[in-house]
Amino acid sequence: MSKLRIGNFSISIDGFGAGPNQSLDNPLGVGGHALHEWAFRTDTFQKMLGKGEGTKGPDNDFAMRGFTNIGAWILGRNMFGPIRGLWPDKNWKGWWGNNPPYHTPVFVLTHHPRESITMDGGTTFHFVTDGIFSALERATDVANGLDVGLGGGVATIQQYLRARLIDELHIAISPVILGSGERLFSGINMVELGYRCAEHMATENATHIVFKKVM
Amino acid sequence: MSKLRIGNFSISIDGFGAGPNQSLDNPLGVGGHALHEWAFRTDTFQKMLGKGEGTKGPDNDFAMRGFTNIGAWILGRNMFGPIRGLWPDKNWKGWWGNNPPYHTPVFVLTHHPRESITMDGGTTFHFVTDGIFSALERATDVANGLDVGLGGGVATIQQYLRARLIDELHIAISPVILGSGERLFSGINMVELGYRCAEHMATENATHIVFKKVM
Repeated sequence: MSKLRIGNFSISIDGFGAGPNQSLDNPLGVGGHALHEWAFRTDTFQKMLGKGEGTKGPDNDFAMRGFTNIGAWILGRNMFGPIRGLWPDKNWKGWWGNNPPYHTPVFVLTHHPRESITMDGGTTFHFVTDGIFSALERATDVANGLDVGLGGGVATIQQYLRARLIDELHIAISPVILGSGERLFSGINMVELGYRCAEHMATENATHIVFKKVM
Repeated sequence: MSKLRIGNFSISIDGFGAGPNQSLDNPLGVGGHALHEWAFRTDTFQKMLGKGEGTKGPDNDFAMRGFTNIGAWILGRNMFGPIRGLWPDKNWKGWWGNNPPYHTPVFVLTHHPRESITMDGGTTFHFVTDGIFSALERATDVANGLDVGLGGGVATIQQYLRARLIDELHIAISPVILGSGERLFSGINMVELGYRCAEHMATENATHIVFKKVM
């Protein structure tokens, strides 16, 4: 059965999944880039960015796993871009250039309708205005038996966690502090929601935890 | 100069420094014991508990460091016992039996006066009713040039952090989730308070972080 999975979601020691004040210059919020340093170094990300070889080992194993067996993606709107409200600029096609790293249909949650966009490399962005359940249903339909990847951000993950729809959640705790921003577990009781810590692997770059839903 | 240091303060992946509902049976709150498993296994703690040898290595190095060069301790009242309000039971002398692991003067923050208690092994409990500054002043005085250790709990640490009085804070993130309880960094902006992540060392049992105040 198709699962809803989150892979490679990085948080700071003080629990933030993104820094404050996301903008065009700071897609991950101020200071947010440091959250992902462990991932950028890996072979998986280096090759994805067209930069040659990167590190192998546990960090890379997790990085790769996040992109394996995924047939469709769901993203919160802020993951797609810094623009809020209506879509004044139809030229905005995500942070990733013409060939985004998804290579599958991607369902972007938004309150504002927009026509689908076909990108190079197999990625198509669809804009879903009728909520998280609808997005999951549509993503599962086209995933063809593969899993659905949930990219974030924090608000979107929290919605799916509260609805107990996430089967697997891999987070990487990076050795940085952000001080403010969006806290992944704010108001979220993972124990009551039925999640357990199923895997734990620490490297010098990050502490990896995999939560699985057991109830 | 004498520093105010926290060593071996364990938090869960979701950020809690203690589980909910502290009581006589659950000094660390429900589920809180699992937070400290990395520490209990170490040689430092095994010997402290009179149980023979424990593990050596980075976990033990951190454990030991938390008790080294400390000339006095400060504890929040809940660290001293589960009793709230007045001191109805004068027989309560802490969780640790006749020979507590401090072996120095220990200043317990409370709103309710109580006479000092001399224990075996060099530990004396003093009860401070005039706040965190007074406790730190008294502890520094008797520490004789050594550092002052702050044992917790969360509320006490937060007070000292907000006052920017903590020089060094070692936390260990344990691979457990608690779901609820007291969150160490709730309402605390470590960046604005002037702290930086100075050390990071991950083992299979815990991820150790040392914060230092740089401003």
